[in-house]
Amino acid sequence: MRTNALQELWTAGHVAVNAWLTIPSGWTAELMSHCGFDSVLIDMQHGLIDFEMTVSMLQAISTTSTVPLVRVPWNEPGILMRVLDAGAFGIVCPMINTAEQARTFVGACRYPPAGFRSYGPVRGLLYGGDDYVQRANNTILTLALIETAEALKNLEGIASVEGLSGLYVGPSDLSMSLGIAKRADFDDPKMQEALRHILETAQRHQLIAGVQAGSVDNALRLAAMGFRLVTPMTDSALLQSASRSVAAQMRALHGS
Amino acid sequence: MRTNALQELWTAGHVAVNAWLTIPSGWTAELMSHCGFDSVLIDMQHGLIDFEMTVSMLQAISTTSTVPLVRVPWNEPGILMRVLDAGAFGIVCPMINTAEQARTFVGACRYPPAGFRSYGPVRGLLYGGDDYVQRANNTILTLALIETAEALKNLEGIASVEGLSGLYVGPSDLSMSLGIAKRADFDDPKMQEALRHILETAQRHQLIAGVQAGSVDNALRLAAMGFRLVTPMTDSALLQSASRSVAAQMRALHGS
Amino acid sequence: MRTNALQELWTAGHVAVNAWLTIPSGWTAELMSHCGFDSVLIDMQHGLIDFEMTVSMLQAISTTSTVPLVRVPWNEPGILMRVLDAGAFGIVCPMINTAEQARTFVGACRYPPAGFRSYGPVRGLLYGGDDYVQRANNTILTLALIETAEALKNLEGIASVEGLSGLYVGPSDLSMSLGIAKRADFDDPKMQEALRHILETAQRHQLIAGVQAGSVDNALRLAAMGFRLVTPMTDSALLQSASRSVAAQMRALHGS
Amino acid sequence: MRTNALQELWTAGHVAVNAWLTIPSGWTAELMSHCGFDSVLIDMQHGLIDFEMTVSMLQAISTTSTVPLVRVPWNEPGILMRVLDAGAFGIVCPMINTAEQARTFVGACRYPPAGFRSYGPVRGLLYGGDDYVQRANNTILTLALIETAEALKNLEGIASVEGLSGLYVGPSDLSMSLGIAKRADFDDPKMQEALRHILETAQRHQLIAGVQAGSVDNALRLAAMGFRLVTPMTDSALLQSASRSVAAQMRALHGS
Amino acid sequence: MRTNALQELWTAGHVAVNAWLTIPSGWTAELMSHCGFDSVLIDMQHGLIDFEMTVSMLQAISTTSTVPLVRVPWNEPGILMRVLDAGAFGIVCPMINTAEQARTFVGACRYPPAGFRSYGPVRGLLYGGDDYVQRANNTILTLALIETAEALKNLEGIASVEGLSGLYVGPSDLSMSLGIAKRADFDDPKMQEALRHILETAQRHQLIAGVQAGSVDNALRLAAMGFRLVTPMTDSALLQSASRSVAAQMRALHGS
Amino acid sequence: MRTNALQELWTAGHVAVNAWLTIPSGWTAELMSHCGFDSVLIDMQHGLIDFEMTVSMLQAISTTSTVPLVRVPWNEPGILMRVLDAGAFGIVCPMINTAEQARTFVGACRYPPAGFRSYGPVRGLLYGGDDYVQRANNTILTLALIETAEALKNLEGIASVEGLSGLYVGPSDLSMSLGIAKRADFDDPKMQEALRHILETAQRHQLIAGVQAGSVDNALRLAAMGFRLVTPMTDSALLQSASRSVAAQMRALHGS
Repeated sequence: MRTNALQELWTAGHVAVNAWLTIPSGWTAELMSHCGFDSVLIDMQHGLIDFEMTVSMLQAISTTSTVPLVRVPWNEPGILMRVLDAGAFGIVCPMINTAEQARTFVGACRYPPAGFRSYGPVRGLLYGGDDYVQRANNTILTLALIETAEALKNLEGIASVEGLSGLYVGPSDLSMSLGIAKRADFDDPKMQEALRHILETAQRHQLIAGVQAGSVDNALRLAAMGFRLVTPMTDSALLQSASRSVAAQMRALHGS
Repeated sequence: MRTNALQELWTAGHVAVNAWLTIPSGWTAELMSHCGFDSVLIDMQHGLIDFEMTVSMLQAISTTSTVPLVRVPWNEPGILMRVLDAGAFGIVCPMINTAEQARTFVGACRYPPAGFRSYGPVRGLLYGGDDYVQRANNTILTLALIETAEALKNLEGIASVEGLSGLYVGPSDLSMSLGIAKRADFDDPKMQEALRHILETAQRHQLIAGVQAGSVDNALRLAAMGFRLVTPMTDSALLQSASRSVAAQMRALHGS
Repeated sequence: MRTNALQELWTAGHVAVNAWLTIPSGWTAELMSHCGFDSVLIDMQHGLIDFEMTVSMLQAISTTSTVPLVRVPWNEPGILMRVLDAGAFGIVCPMINTAEQARTFVGACRYPPAGFRSYGPVRGLLYGGDDYVQRANNTILTLALIETAEALKNLEGIASVEGLSGLYVGPSDLSMSLGIAKRADFDDPKMQEALRHILETAQRHQLIAGVQAGSVDNALRLAAMGFRLVTPMTDSALLQSASRSVAAQMRALHGS
Repeated sequence: MRTNALQELWTAGHVAVNAWLTIPSGWTAELMSHCGFDSVLIDMQHGLIDFEMTVSMLQAISTTSTVPLVRVPWNEPGILMRVLDAGAFGIVCPMINTAEQARTFVGACRYPPAGFRSYGPVRGLLYGGDDYVQRANNTILTLALIETAEALKNLEGIASVEGLSGLYVGPSDLSMSLGIAKRADFDDPKMQEALRHILETAQRHQLIAGVQAGSVDNALRLAAMGFRLVTPMTDSALLQSASRSVAAQMRALHGS
Repeated sequence: MRTNALQELWTAGHVAVNAWLTIPSGWTAELMSHCGFDSVLIDMQHGLIDFEMTVSMLQAISTTSTVPLVRVPWNEPGILMRVLDAGAFGIVCPMINTAEQARTFVGACRYPPAGFRSYGPVRGLLYGGDDYVQRANNTILTLALIETAEALKNLEGIASVEGLSGLYVGPSDLSMSLGIAKRADFDDPKMQEALRHILETAQRHQLIAGVQAGSVDNALRLAAMGFRLVTPMTDSALLQSASRSVAAQMRALHGS
Repeated sequence: MRTNALQELWTAGHVAVNAWLTIPSGWTAELMSHCGFDSVLIDMQHGLIDFEMTVSMLQAISTTSTVPLVRVPWNEPGILMRVLDAGAFGIVCPMINTAEQARTFVGACRYPPAGFRSYGPVRGLLYGGDDYVQRANNTILTLALIETAEALKNLEGIASVEGLSGLYVGPSDLSMSLGIAKRADFDDPKMQEALRHILETAQRHQLIAGVQAGSVDNALRLAAMGFRLVTPMTDSALLQSASRSVAAQMRALHGS
């Protein structure tokens, strides 16, 4: 089976840099896969992307060696298994708040006897190789989104679930859940404490800690703290920010 | 009929700033329409966009007051009329090299007796208003792409075609056609001469002169020269450039 | 944030008239939004419409001031949140039979601390405005479909759920569940009793009562009873009925 | 090969009643095919419909015995042949103004030696039957849109083209081309004269005369004049008219 | 209502042969429906097919008399009901491991009082006929996938669920769940025992027993054992196997 | 720029084996690209495939090293250039009957000064590499379909067009055009003579000769004659033939 390049990066001691796709387009997926990121994630939760488009985007990413990840819309076995069959090499699952939820998530991603994933890896076989079924359980990443106060409370149980690959911090939801005034404020003491708690728990359980950083500066800073998978910005945010900047620079032409 | 805000801008003496869409997505079309551009053009020639997607994107743009333009894939009456029926308020038509080609282009965009556009403005009526048919000939822009040595030679004839709204410079093709070493080199003397020739001809015929600038700096400079419709960059170029920059800034994390 | 025009109508003491979309098409969504209805609902349950099409249709509706509503296929947090992120200003949720189900539905539609909606309102921000997150909980409607005998039994508990906006009657399912011989028979005594029970409960809890009327006559009559949101007919029913009528009038031409 | 039911109707002396589809949806295509029309036409010119959607709609129509027709966007051999390969049993071609244009149109629709249609009738074979290629030239209808003053002038030449099945009147374009004040005014003397000229020419050449009627009344009246294929209204017009009527009847609820 | 031809085949004592679609395409669905199979199943679980594509494929199948079946992605009421509304005449539901799960599955497929299916059979009415709602409960097949050790243990309870039509064996998952070394090995003693157990239970409860055979030989052998619904191969497997064989036969041309 | 592996095969003296895609699906495109063919052609003429689907299929093919080819629907500059921009490494153009038509075809595929291809190779740059524009003219194949008596008559002129890469025989159309009784009959003396004429002309002009073979046996035989690019069968034909064979083998189960 094709190896998971993220695992190799981490073994080599590096931090993986991830791009985040919310635009429903195979074209932008291919474009982003050529920009120098280690992995590219298709966001089916807050992105505007259905399953068939996800398949197209996974094909587009597979024209490069960039690792394809998917965030599913919810912790539901049907969509988890379909996305894996389509060739995702890692899943980010939203709102994992309890060990039980983590077990359902991980179970849906692992073939028996480790879990209850159903056989039928159509595109997975083409992308992964003939021994896909034998090796998928060890190759495919399962990353639980930690984004509520409840998840923090249950973190030890979540981290102890067999087969889980990592904890991924969703700072926007986490800050709202913790009652922090400013959304995704990495400087807030409660957020700082949460980040250290998650990092420490991840390291103790030999799990990867990941985080949605929101900017290059945050990403560098969080990597320095110990996060191993960092996402600087989404495609939509990059496009919007660049476009607004261009339009603003051109405003002088309106003579105002 | 809804007025064409570009015409109002020009009447007020301003330069219009245009965004250029090559990504086939209603979402990015809507996003870009909120960024502060005066118009947004859907590129069916070098973009990856079919007609039904064009309709979706026109709807997305119509959620704002940004003016919707379309570049058709080729000077062919079928697609010209369909794009107008879908509600485009301006058309950029590639490779207009002769007066005869310009007449075919303009004729397909104008109802009789000015032209031979066929009646059936489905979405045009909803977007434009009940008097669409009465006013469309005077409201919808027809912009001929001037991008070959042949077009320069025939410029006077092209500019004389009744009903044409403007001349739009395609500098990449033009530089290749003129044998200029560097693509879209606005500093090349032959390009400078061509730009002045086009500007002067446009002004003499009371036509708008537009140009694909390729950067903010070029756009400002070309506006200063007299161009009234300038496109700084395409959506794909903005996204690619911003993404590459982010990935490059993160490279340090790979420890190399 | 853009205000919800339905709330304003109700404050002014009016009844809101809703159109119901089952055809998967941005074009018909735009067409229907121009016909004079107060709101337009995209039916993802019994309509033939997926999520990406829902986004296109929401964009089409947003070219007008008509309020966009969505009926989700089922009471499932993933799809509830995605539809809100796409810009729906109200959700109708099928088969709310218990207070617990109502709590899950409403919770998925409200940001913390009121609920557990996840942050990421991509299109919601563009359509709603920059303060979307601050105001969404008070602006977006949550309407529970009351359509079973079980729901009638649990109505007090359902109506007591904090954050619920209204009770919407599904008369076809309700009549089947109540064992009424004729489907959606508003004249049946059991149906009459159910309607009064729902209306009275809604009014007591300051909730909006809505109803799928099935015809203009029923809609007018139900509005007179006290329903504040009425849907006369679906797009498919309107098209089918008009087309059959035309075909029938033309039958004489077959000489039979 | 499956027979063309329109030909059988005409042999039996009946007038065929046609529905006209502009909505890009297999669902509405199937719905309309169940309403009692003899044929259903997919409008790729003024409808919002691309080729792949046309194929879906042809499949939807083929679930019934209603005859599938297509109007192509323009007189271009590529799209004419593709639509036939997809299983259309008749083509309406816009803007046939000269005998030469009619020959190109008909030639693209007929296999050699009658024309130059290229072999590859993928779906045509499934829908039509194994002897499709042997019988297609005699089964598939070619209907030229007569909608300009130029076409009227050249009518004799157009009607003489071997293999043409009929003349179809486009009254909106025709009235604009003839300088008639009111669009598609069947009462205008110039229009009346044109209709009689077309009818007489068609009958003399044993061609079918068809017409876009715009209403049931017009359709009945034009059938009485001698037109054998009449289209009362489009799907969008039916839906819009029915919806506006419903919304208007509900207006009283706004208390104004 | 249109009768279910599979029920008629079984009444006549025949075995039904099923085709299995994993390719998201109306074209291949139509093609396969013309090949002589009794039914065609659209696989939304391990196929790459969303709901709107399922509707298109159901329309394509409905151009023939082949019976349309669907495998849903998971046992979830929303998708079960949508697929039925779209006109499926039978549902295969994955991972039915307990009587409770079977009751949920069957309940979602049956109108009250037999179950809790919601009214709104849009396409079902067109395809099935005007008395669809009266007869659907007796016409539409509900087939539970038996594919885990847990399901075998609970088989008696599952088979006793009122309204269930059959048990369908998923041999790949079943062999993995039973710890059988070779996937889908029909010769393995444990598999043999499971097959006999399922067959015997089905027959005792007057249920249909079906099975994914994986080859013509297996299908014939399993039919001889008593299975009444057999699927030899999927479309993707047929296409891949035929293509590989062609490519291998052509290899000599590479001179190696 | 990525080299064209077909050119390397030919330089090495081998015959290239091509697969032919008519199914509109990225999934089957990817599947077929893994089967061992040297190139895969997307058929936009007789296949059921639009431009946006072509882009998806090109991406799917690009996950492998198989060379992507496209047959355009017609010899029209707009679609020729769009398909090249999307990353096709070779074009087959239908119905090239004259030298003039060949010049138009080749001109649209070559950048100035060799031709008039417009600049904007969006996906071509990603797939081909940064020096795409410098090398495209020498890397991308232009193959003219020779499929009429007229083309045979003008073969010398066609073959002499600068920049043409090869002559590809369409035997179905050619046999119809030559009045051969049986379609695509390679044994017919007139066909034999045509094949030899085409082969001889191609060899004399150092062009590749290709052919649609229709079966493995024909492909091997035509390769032995000297054809260097052979297509045994289309995807639809492979799927249909395999499916019919399976269904026929299962017929015994119907007890007839």
